[in-house]
Amino acid sequence: MTSETATPTPREDGRADDELRPIKITRGWLDHAAGSVLVEFGKTRVLCAASASEGVPRWRKGSGQGWVTAEYSMLPASTHTRSDRESVKGRIGGRTHEISRLIGRSLRAVIDYDAMGENTIQLDCDVLQADGGTRTAAITGAYVALVDACASLGVAGALTGSVAAVSVGIIDGTPRLDLPYVEDVRAETDMNVVMTGTGAFVEVQGTAEGAAFDRRELDALLDLAQKGCADLTELQRVALGA
Amino acid sequence: MTSETATPTPREDGRADDELRPIKITRGWLDHAAGSVLVEFGKTRVLCAASASEGVPRWRKGSGQGWVTAEYSMLPASTHTRSDRESVKGRIGGRTHEISRLIGRSLRAVIDYDAMGENTIQLDCDVLQADGGTRTAAITGAYVALVDACASLGVAGALTGSVAAVSVGIIDGTPRLDLPYVEDVRAETDMNVVMTGTGAFVEVQGTAEGAAFDRRELDALLDLAQKGCADLTELQRVALGA
Amino acid sequence: MTSETATPTPREDGRADDELRPIKITRGWLDHAAGSVLVEFGKTRVLCAASASEGVPRWRKGSGQGWVTAEYSMLPASTHTRSDRESVKGRIGGRTHEISRLIGRSLRAVIDYDAMGENTIQLDCDVLQADGGTRTAAITGAYVALVDACASLGVAGALTGSVAAVSVGIIDGTPRLDLPYVEDVRAETDMNVVMTGTGAFVEVQGTAEGAAFDRRELDALLDLAQKGCADLTELQRVALGA
Amino acid sequence: MTSETATPTPREDGRADDELRPIKITRGWLDHAAGSVLVEFGKTRVLCAASASEGVPRWRKGSGQGWVTAEYSMLPASTHTRSDRESVKGRIGGRTHEISRLIGRSLRAVIDYDAMGENTIQLDCDVLQADGGTRTAAITGAYVALVDACASLGVAGALTGSVAAVSVGIIDGTPRLDLPYVEDVRAETDMNVVMTGTGAFVEVQGTAEGAAFDRRELDALLDLAQKGCADLTELQRVALGA
Amino acid sequence: MTSETATPTPREDGRADDELRPIKITRGWLDHAAGSVLVEFGKTRVLCAASASEGVPRWRKGSGQGWVTAEYSMLPASTHTRSDRESVKGRIGGRTHEISRLIGRSLRAVIDYDAMGENTIQLDCDVLQADGGTRTAAITGAYVALVDACASLGVAGALTGSVAAVSVGIIDGTPRLDLPYVEDVRAETDMNVVMTGTGAFVEVQGTAEGAAFDRRELDALLDLAQKGCADLTELQRVALGA
Amino acid sequence: MTSETATPTPREDGRADDELRPIKITRGWLDHAAGSVLVEFGKTRVLCAASASEGVPRWRKGSGQGWVTAEYSMLPASTHTRSDRESVKGRIGGRTHEISRLIGRSLRAVIDYDAMGENTIQLDCDVLQADGGTRTAAITGAYVALVDACASLGVAGALTGSVAAVSVGIIDGTPRLDLPYVEDVRAETDMNVVMTGTGAFVEVQGTAEGAAFDRRELDALLDLAQKGCADLTELQRVALGA
Repeated sequence: MTSETATPTPREDGRADDELRPIKITRGWLDHAAGSVLVEFGKTRVLCAASASEGVPRWRKGSGQGWVTAEYSMLPASTHTRSDRESVKGRIGGRTHEISRLIGRSLRAVIDYDAMGENTIQLDCDVLQADGGTRTAAITGAYVALVDACASLGVAGALTGSVAAVSVGIIDGTPRLDLPYVEDVRAETDMNVVMTGTGAFVEVQGTAEGAAFDRRELDALLDLAQKGCADLTELQRVALGA
Repeated sequence: MTSETATPTPREDGRADDELRPIKITRGWLDHAAGSVLVEFGKTRVLCAASASEGVPRWRKGSGQGWVTAEYSMLPASTHTRSDRESVKGRIGGRTHEISRLIGRSLRAVIDYDAMGENTIQLDCDVLQADGGTRTAAITGAYVALVDACASLGVAGALTGSVAAVSVGIIDGTPRLDLPYVEDVRAETDMNVVMTGTGAFVEVQGTAEGAAFDRRELDALLDLAQKGCADLTELQRVALGA
Repeated sequence: MTSETATPTPREDGRADDELRPIKITRGWLDHAAGSVLVEFGKTRVLCAASASEGVPRWRKGSGQGWVTAEYSMLPASTHTRSDRESVKGRIGGRTHEISRLIGRSLRAVIDYDAMGENTIQLDCDVLQADGGTRTAAITGAYVALVDACASLGVAGALTGSVAAVSVGIIDGTPRLDLPYVEDVRAETDMNVVMTGTGAFVEVQGTAEGAAFDRRELDALLDLAQKGCADLTELQRVALGA
Repeated sequence: MTSETATPTPREDGRADDELRPIKITRGWLDHAAGSVLVEFGKTRVLCAASASEGVPRWRKGSGQGWVTAEYSMLPASTHTRSDRESVKGRIGGRTHEISRLIGRSLRAVIDYDAMGENTIQLDCDVLQADGGTRTAAITGAYVALVDACASLGVAGALTGSVAAVSVGIIDGTPRLDLPYVEDVRAETDMNVVMTGTGAFVEVQGTAEGAAFDRRELDALLDLAQKGCADLTELQRVALGA
Repeated sequence: MTSETATPTPREDGRADDELRPIKITRGWLDHAAGSVLVEFGKTRVLCAASASEGVPRWRKGSGQGWVTAEYSMLPASTHTRSDRESVKGRIGGRTHEISRLIGRSLRAVIDYDAMGENTIQLDCDVLQADGGTRTAAITGAYVALVDACASLGVAGALTGSVAAVSVGIIDGTPRLDLPYVEDVRAETDMNVVMTGTGAFVEVQGTAEGAAFDRRELDALLDLAQKGCADLTELQRVALGA
Repeated sequence: MTSETATPTPREDGRADDELRPIKITRGWLDHAAGSVLVEFGKTRVLCAASASEGVPRWRKGSGQGWVTAEYSMLPASTHTRSDRESVKGRIGGRTHEISRLIGRSLRAVIDYDAMGENTIQLDCDVLQADGGTRTAAITGAYVALVDACASLGVAGALTGSVAAVSVGIIDGTPRLDLPYVEDVRAETDMNVVMTGTGAFVEVQGTAEGAAFDRRELDALLDLAQKGCADLTELQRVALGA
């Protein structure tokens, strides 16, 4: 990491600025799903289930290709203050849509549709507890569940690589890795980065929450994210016993 | 139990006909909710969260009384075959509505609204894995979460008793307690019973799935349910360290 | 009836505790439907229409079996205070769902799907005026409409029996049969019972509105319901000229 | 009527071309509503209920003026072939919206808002059986229910006149009054006309179903409608005992 | 025009009572649609797009006949005070439904379905700016877009005539043609008239906004509308270079 | 630009790789809105309307601060193949939600809420014709409409800077600026960048559509975007006569 991290303000949880929270990846947390993972980034806890089924959506029939899609949701009591259920409101909010689409795109980046055959894998990422970084935890965990689901379908070769994701942000002028809620709400700039296991970018989504950021700050955040994703890739490998 | 249980057909999981599945009640499973319980009836796993907040719904304002309500939902991958999300479908199904209402009524049966003051406790019962008896597990676990939420609000005295619930059914002519999915789908008659810790009935919901049932069968099922609820009441007491 | 009914508090309408309200079953109230009944339990008035059509829902095609389903609804001005239309609200409430499902299950309990052939009968139970017991009136009337619809389809043999339903409750400690609205709102315990014409139970749905009830009270309510359903079965037979 | 009616093709029900179907207006059909009418135009049967309540919608508060609004709906089994419920479909169709708005406008044409005070009358027109002309029957019946509701609110003076409505159409070149379903589906031109008791027009809604119509045909239809509305006005007077 | 127009109160925009606003019909305003027109009636500006596609709705398949349908909508900022989006509200309002249906019926009045073959033309009429008469401008412009779409499908012969529409109303006792918003809100009677190019009526929709109107006033409005539609028909011909 | 742009494959429209399409910003396109702009990026045409109103949403009342929000939508016929209306589907899609949120965040980045006072400005960005880059055109045009709306509210000082947005992407290995539809669908990587007039980043949203991208490619895209936003900033200044 660069010298920006040498800031005198320490993180509440004592981590270094370029250090991930304690990460826990528990495979096989459910009995029915083809793949399932309880992924924890500190207090953030997301249940990622991959359901495999034969056949593909109508628009893809006869193509010989498979399909991977994802849905993200938060349990009402997962947040600091209870949130209303989207099923009760009768409509899915913009944020939920946005994150579901992000997860789907991220996983499809490492899928060879032809090698899947006409099978569908549906990822469900349900946030049991939210403490910042739920979408990046979801992507990181969902990849592991996807590996197990591909294996259960007998199409392990459909995976062309791995993906992991992490959040980075600038807090009080300091770039930091893997923001918990208390840092997330104070961040001037917030970025989610999805990368392959070989270090290429799949998604870069940066937003100025407070002040706009310059190119130098952007570069520092990208450096941090590259380190975080590399660390997560290694943890995924360990969890998969690969 | 009566002599009906002396049937030669053993249960798949080796239990006696009047025996509960292994029950596990884990308190404090979440960090934010006022009360939270992961309750397990065998492979059935329900996360019960009780969120406490000041104030009551508009129609109750100024009454000096509190309110308790509940919502039930199943995660898509909780079932043997993935179910579509109700938020995506844009409407809540009849079964979900029915169970949410049942849980709410059951918990309100042991609440003294006056002693609560104008506070609201919202129970969220989310089925993480379903293997039969999700609504009865939800009620049994939600009661424990409710106790913790009342304590956190400083209104422990608002609870006038305890509630627990269990399913019973007739399989191949034999009344059995606490049906897992494989028994539930084969049951001729299916009944959910909610009882107070002192052995009184709060809800009795019996349905002839196959043939209509006679009064003698109904009596045998009620006997079994009384035993099951008494056992669950004891397990709740242990979990609460009371 | 048992001695509980020897209470000194008379019913507002002068009935004995085990006496039904005046029941009126008018067949053929509509011109288009295959079967139609205007059923009256005192001031409660429900229009039950059975529409018959060839074919079955997709999931049942090719099975050779028929299907029976039901929908319940209340007209806005049927209640003491006008209720909003569910079509205007854009969603069906939990209570409506619950009752529609109950009516459907109750009628299906006396249907032999094979004898129906691949035909569908759709029951519509619309409450024109509500004064307690709308769901039990609906079931009792819908059965009669169903008989006419089966006859019109030429599958009279698809009916394996009859069903009737009645509400019972405990008011001021006294079990009573067929509660009008004024009694319903005061009932400590409220139970709806659906029975076949041969006296077997199809549904038992008891709820403690106030205090939980003991086994002896439950037994008294079941006794009352058995009597009420037997009386309704007789009235159905008369209406059908059987 | 003019010479167009001297057509050799007689009407199926034997009526003269300028003759209404048998009209029946039954007041007080419901017990709870402030005013209620079962109106029958031949086999068309519409239940019109007027619910009165204190207060007005938010946008009218403090104006000292009342409000009258209407909702129209068809029961599923009212039509020749069963129609799906709009509550089940989750949205109200264009035709329903259109007719509800027409009924509301028609009734408001004879209301003096100031004389009503800040009260609201809600008309519900539910078609129990449809055989053509449901919207015109609804308006004709709703007016009578409105009179009773105004009286019950003690604001009989809020009515500045009466309204009645009738359908007219051209069938095989012949203008005819009050079309039943069999004529309605064959009409080249279809017109619904709402008039006051004093013979002024409130609504004229003519549609060329087949060929466009010329001014002479339009005039003939208007003549017929004037006669029909005058006849209905007289029947309303009789029903109201005025 | 008749003598009613000899009123001393001049129109705000200086027009004669039987004079249209400046009308502008711009063809080919869009690049993708088969036909497109930006139509302007004074400040009222409606974008009419006709999308052509092979095939027809399911209920029409195999008939050999085509289909024409229309949807009307207003942009939020088109009105004097911003209106909420119907997509955001999640439901289409009654007025929108009503106008979409009117436009569709009007255009279908000049279509020979057989000559279209199994093709569908969908008209989208989006109001970019509203200043009264949006529905009549939409019909007038949509007809021109429809001509271009038929030509692009190679079925120019499917058009059996032309349609144009105009609003008329009585303001301060004076019948006037083509009302802008300031006149529309003050009109005692408001009528929209759709006519063919040969002077026959397709739709006549008159509404008493204030006082009911008599036959003489109705006749005066119809006279005005006939003149206005004839003028618009001529402008359509010019725009089409026919 | 860097050497990547020196590719031999020319762009279909003959532009240099770092060249914008012809940009047209027409202010005051509507009469009612406080600010309105028709913005054109080549064939992409977006109508941006800024409606100003006193008051703020409930959650912001009493704060003394203003609010700016945005909604994006596409007209059905704006796309190459007609898209269904979201109002008809009854729900807003994920893409629409995502872009509405992006536009709102981008504009709020240059707003001083305190200087606005308790006023709200609502931006409506309706795509009249889509040919790639609709969201970036919307942001660029909406900023200009926002300036006019602030002026009309008398709070010109609420703007702390300007924002503009552009899309960039890698096509056949070559980074290119401002992609039309034909390039967009072929892009391996697609990025939307929002920048302030002073060259700081507000949003960076990059997505690997085909292969993941490396840091060098990311840098090249950011360089291009910086140039494009600077050019757009200049065009905004000219349009505003500043």
